[in-house]
Amino acid sequence: MMKVSVIGTGSWGTALANVLSENGHEVLMWGKTKATIEEINTHHTNEKYLKDIELHAKLAASDVLEDVVHHAEIIIIAVPTKAIRSVMQQINQVINNKKTFIHVSKGIEPHTFKRISEMITEEIDIEYMEGVAVLSGPSHAEELALKHPTTVAVASENETIRQIAQDIFMNEYFRIYTNDDLVGVEIGGALKNIIALAAGITDGLGYGDNAKAALMTRGLAEITRLGTRMGADPMTFLGLAGIGDLIVTCTSVHSRNWKCGNMLGKGLTLEEALSNMGMVVEGVRTTEAANEMADAFGVEMPITQSLYKVLFEGLDVHEGVQNLMNREKTNE
Amino acid sequence: MMKVSVIGTGSWGTALANVLSENGHEVLMWGKTKATIEEINTHHTNEKYLKDIELHAKLAASDVLEDVVHHAEIIIIAVPTKAIRSVMQQINQVINNKKTFIHVSKGIEPHTFKRISEMITEEIDIEYMEGVAVLSGPSHAEELALKHPTTVAVASENETIRQIAQDIFMNEYFRIYTNDDLVGVEIGGALKNIIALAAGITDGLGYGDNAKAALMTRGLAEITRLGTRMGADPMTFLGLAGIGDLIVTCTSVHSRNWKCGNMLGKGLTLEEALSNMGMVVEGVRTTEAANEMADAFGVEMPITQSLYKVLFEGLDVHEGVQNLMNREKTNE
Repeated sequence: MMKVSVIGTGSWGTALANVLSENGHEVLMWGKTKATIEEINTHHTNEKYLKDIELHAKLAASDVLEDVVHHAEIIIIAVPTKAIRSVMQQINQVINNKKTFIHVSKGIEPHTFKRISEMITEEIDIEYMEGVAVLSGPSHAEELALKHPTTVAVASENETIRQIAQDIFMNEYFRIYTNDDLVGVEIGGALKNIIALAAGITDGLGYGDNAKAALMTRGLAEITRLGTRMGADPMTFLGLAGIGDLIVTCTSVHSRNWKCGNMLGKGLTLEEALSNMGMVVEGVRTTEAANEMADAFGVEMPITQSLYKVLFEGLDVHEGVQNLMNREKTNE
Repeated sequence: MMKVSVIGTGSWGTALANVLSENGHEVLMWGKTKATIEEINTHHTNEKYLKDIELHAKLAASDVLEDVVHHAEIIIIAVPTKAIRSVMQQINQVINNKKTFIHVSKGIEPHTFKRISEMITEEIDIEYMEGVAVLSGPSHAEELALKHPTTVAVASENETIRQIAQDIFMNEYFRIYTNDDLVGVEIGGALKNIIALAAGITDGLGYGDNAKAALMTRGLAEITRLGTRMGADPMTFLGLAGIGDLIVTCTSVHSRNWKCGNMLGKGLTLEEALSNMGMVVEGVRTTEAANEMADAFGVEMPITQSLYKVLFEGLDVHEGVQNLMNREKTNE
């Protein structure tokens, strides 16, 4: 059994920390909110993010970052993309020896187009960096917490780190596949949120299952084009971190990005939808990043570009979908 | 505008015939059931297969096969896989000049492993054969009949035939992509029904969205392996006739294969489920064919092989799913 630290006390961080505790590891979580820390330590719950779930009795949390970073040599990073750099800078202030980072976040930095593993590597001094991995796939936190069968991919350029990640997480309800395409697994997880927003819109408009399946398919084609341009293996998009995650995010009632899109389809503005959500909707910022990247790299991304216009330039949602249907006759 | 004949008065044949009429073509359908023919000609409905849909007033039907075959040089074949050979033999008895066949069925012949276009080519005398195409993709008949946006692929080895098929069907709510991979488009459409049956089972068991997305993803991987072995382009499985059709069939309330699997997951026997359905469930026979093919070609297909045991050898459904989750640690 090993010591593992988890940075972040949101839904996914808590569900993963709980699995690690269930697997017999000594887990310490870090969060900023004292009430949540106290709730995890005393009541073994995190009601805001994992309603009605009883957490493992030995799962502990702290708001002292230094203690959590010193606790283990394996650190799970589970904070929103927007917070990655500042959290990693704080970790770099207190880090004491070489660490392996396994991040579980899904986004891309606008303007710089950096993936999360790149941001982590940039913010941690090289002498403290053992290596980095990503864990991604079709995995709603709520279902994993209920021990429903869940399957994800873990990717790293370092084979030992892939094996460690597979070993610490895998059990009879959580199946981990290793993958050596770090770029593809990170990008698949990030870009699928764009398509989930768009799928929510078509559902909100009442367009039906045929339209949504077509949107998801053509969406997969365009995120694969962009991913390949960024150095990903196109076959990764056929896997768990590609189509698998796309399916769950576009079709599940748990998906934040789908829910936000659905509200847009029903006529709410972006501000209204985001304020109703009350949690981070990664796809909005990712659409901004991917729209910039499509321009910068000359990659055709009609769904992303239409969605960008709907989100940021006031294009009517009906018109956005009609533009997609009425393109020229073409081949696949 | 052109003359087009449609063989078959089921849901999909009727929905497609109706689109062709809407597009201004002169359409004649063939069916065996006199009451249905009369209903289409007199009431402009086909209530058994397309409930509450008013068909185009000029859409006509006949039970005289010779008249329907002589009506047009483009013939749409919309009958179940099991009936393909006998219907094509009947057509071959009355055929009078070269015809282009566009089939819209999804299956593979057990034992011979023949695709539908191969069966059509074998049964029609060569002097009457202009060429053959397949139309396939995420397309519930009910939604197309309601003019909900729908997108499919049409494939043929003959470019002119691809163009004709695209031209006659495409309109503002029905978008057609051409594809030159006849083998891949036919096999994707057929094999996806196996995964839809399995997805229905996991839903019937209440396993959740994570499990279903993983099943669909690993299912896509195994049907792609078999398809590639049969000569398909693996990229076709990333397209409308692959993942697109897989998504709609595994997630839509309209899907017959999903519904049948769902009943199995809830504890019904195959006989009970099929008798409740009352319509053809292509996936059952396709599972039989694919299971034989996996053995014959040495292709690893764990989902298909587990499903075969559930359908035909009395394996308990829980045990079937547990076998899939508890395989060895592996990479994608």
